[in-house]
Parts: sequence; C-alpha cells; structure tokens
Amino acid sequence: MPKRPRQVNEAGSEFYLGPKKRITVRAWKGVPLVDIREYWKDDEDVEKPSKKGISLTADQFRDLLKYADEISNVLDSME
Amino acid sequence: MPKRPRQVNEAGSEFYLGPKKRITVRAWKGVPLVDIREYWKDDEDVEKPSKKGISLTADQFRDLLKYADEISNVLDSME
Repeated sequence: MPKRPRQVNEAGSEFYLGPKKRITVRAWKGVPLVDIREYWKDDEDVEKPSKKGISLTADQFRDLLKYADEISNVLDSME
Repeated sequence: MPKRPRQVNEAGSEFYLGPKKRITVRAWKGVPLVDIREYWKDDEDVEKPSKKGISLTADQFRDLLKYADEISNVLDSME
C-alpha cells in the first residue's frame, strides 16, 4: 500500500498508486468521474497530470469492481 | 453490466466497460498488466486502442481494489 493513501483537496479525493500514478474522484460538469492517471514532475518538482490516463464514470467504475475477482484470478494465473 | 462481459484472445483477457472502454489483462515482456483503455473504430469498423488509457501492474491494480470501498463511498456522496 502506498505511503500516502488519500488526500482531499480542490482537485477532489485522491488515492495514490505508487509515486507516479493516482486515482482522483471528482465531478466534471456535475458528473462524478474516477480518473486513473500517470503524473510527472516539472522543473520545479510540481506534480502534473500526464496524458496517460482514463476517466471512468461511476457506472464504469462499478463494472470494473464487478470484474475484480475475475481479473484477480487471471493475474494470479500469470504469476 | 455490459453485454459482452469477457473475451479471451491473443490480446489477453478482455472485460468490457460499455461500448468504448475495455480492460485487458495481458503480459508485456513477462510482466502481467491490467490495461484500462478507450477504443475507437476505424473506417472499416475495426476497434483500435486509443492513447486514452493506462496500464497498471498487478500490485497497482490490487492497491486500486483496496481503495474500492472508499472510492465507492466518495462516488455515493456525490450522487
């Protein structure tokens, strides 16, 4: 589990997946979104969101969770 | 839940999040990855992966699942 599990700020609620990836839950034009994205540091060491990422709607995130067991089984079978 | 819940082919195991987004579990140079990505259709109606997406390692995917309850709570509070 990452060291900083959660932060709530003006960007929304953030959950860290290691140093470079982040899950942000926020509303975009009133629509709740779960954004899973890679971040990079600029010259002044400020973390910026990169283009590598995807935003899921609440329903799409819930579908992902429905698949969780099956995805975990596939991962286990590969390790 | 999407109509086509799962497909296994040369690309790996695929799980559908609606018509345009897809989770693919596959090995890249021996490393199991969970890729969550948007797809688009070319002129011949063939679905192609877009640049909008992110690949998670197995550990990062497991961390995402550890956050699942808290993320779901945040989503519920926004709706």
